[in-house]
Amino acid sequence: MKVLIIGASGTIGKAITKEFEKKHDVIRAGRNGADVSVDNTSVESIIEMYDQVGKVDAVVNAAGGANFASISDLTPELNEKGIESKLKGQINLVLIGKDYVKDGGSFTLTTGVMMDDPIPLGASAAMANGGVKSFVKAASIEMPRGIRINCVSPNIVQESWEKLGGFFAGFEPVPAIRVARAFVKSVEGAQTGQNYEVY
Amino acid sequence: MKVLIIGASGTIGKAITKEFEKKHDVIRAGRNGADVSVDNTSVESIIEMYDQVGKVDAVVNAAGGANFASISDLTPELNEKGIESKLKGQINLVLIGKDYVKDGGSFTLTTGVMMDDPIPLGASAAMANGGVKSFVKAASIEMPRGIRINCVSPNIVQESWEKLGGFFAGFEPVPAIRVARAFVKSVEGAQTGQNYEVY
Repeated sequence: MKVLIIGASGTIGKAITKEFEKKHDVIRAGRNGADVSVDNTSVESIIEMYDQVGKVDAVVNAAGGANFASISDLTPELNEKGIESKLKGQINLVLIGKDYVKDGGSFTLTTGVMMDDPIPLGASAAMANGGVKSFVKAASIEMPRGIRINCVSPNIVQESWEKLGGFFAGFEPVPAIRVARAFVKSVEGAQTGQNYEVY
Repeated sequence: MKVLIIGASGTIGKAITKEFEKKHDVIRAGRNGADVSVDNTSVESIIEMYDQVGKVDAVVNAAGGANFASISDLTPELNEKGIESKLKGQINLVLIGKDYVKDGGSFTLTTGVMMDDPIPLGASAAMANGGVKSFVKAASIEMPRGIRINCVSPNIVQESWEKLGGFFAGFEPVPAIRVARAFVKSVEGAQTGQNYEVY
């Protein structure tokens, strides 16, 4: 399969890439993508990416950010990053990309544990995660040409624990390879409309 | 209690208003609000509304829209209404309004059944609903000054069945009064971080 991975150079993106490269033809995309550059907050940039890459079997997204801020500090402006990047960035990859994915292909997006098990400073990210999860579930019932769509909800991963563990008090981090396997399940499996929790 | 109801003139908003007026001092807001006008897609308009209304015990929102379109037809542009109105419109009522709500007060937002039981054309609305639900759950753990936050997820209501029932094949509509009671539970009760399903 030809698999386009956006956010391929991040911690989870690297684990996904490594796993998919074993069996598939991987195209690595990202802000400074090894194969193709894309800014997921720009519709034009997403279109350019797909035009460059051409038809693919699977689109896998591990990119998208949100600001960490307490509710007391969170403003409409600070919330915009989550809206533009983690939420719309992912959804626009689908809305634009549906014409570039082959019949029977798939999209796999990323949500995250914070929507189910909230942490301080995480409301904006949780918002984006929940929006993506519900979009995926609803979109799955009317995707054209047999295209499937799922998302993966990772826990904090062991590889990020040293840097980010302080935000996730009492969480049990998971190895990034477990998250990567959920993406493989989405792409190589046959389910649609799922949110695979890797907790 | 002083209860600010945004979207008070809609089908569900009217039922909520009727229920709250029995015991509370209600301020009706909306695009052409009986007491105060507000455009929830504008941060400036939300600020003006709160400045006009002053401190309140409870903010109840029944406003917010999204475009109905199939995934094949849904574009990033058509998805913007759901983002700006149903999602950010509600969240900005909280981010801006938290300083206008009294200690121990509450916010109650609106999600909807489509995020849990998807219908054709409903992906954009489902996205917004899911974003609001996850935001509410995450925000509830760090709201300042004992302020609570919940949302209500209405099924299609009997009062809208003639107009909208065609979109909800096989659904069992609920009376709007049942939805209104869930808002009362949120405002007069003591729970926080909940999504009350009225299905």
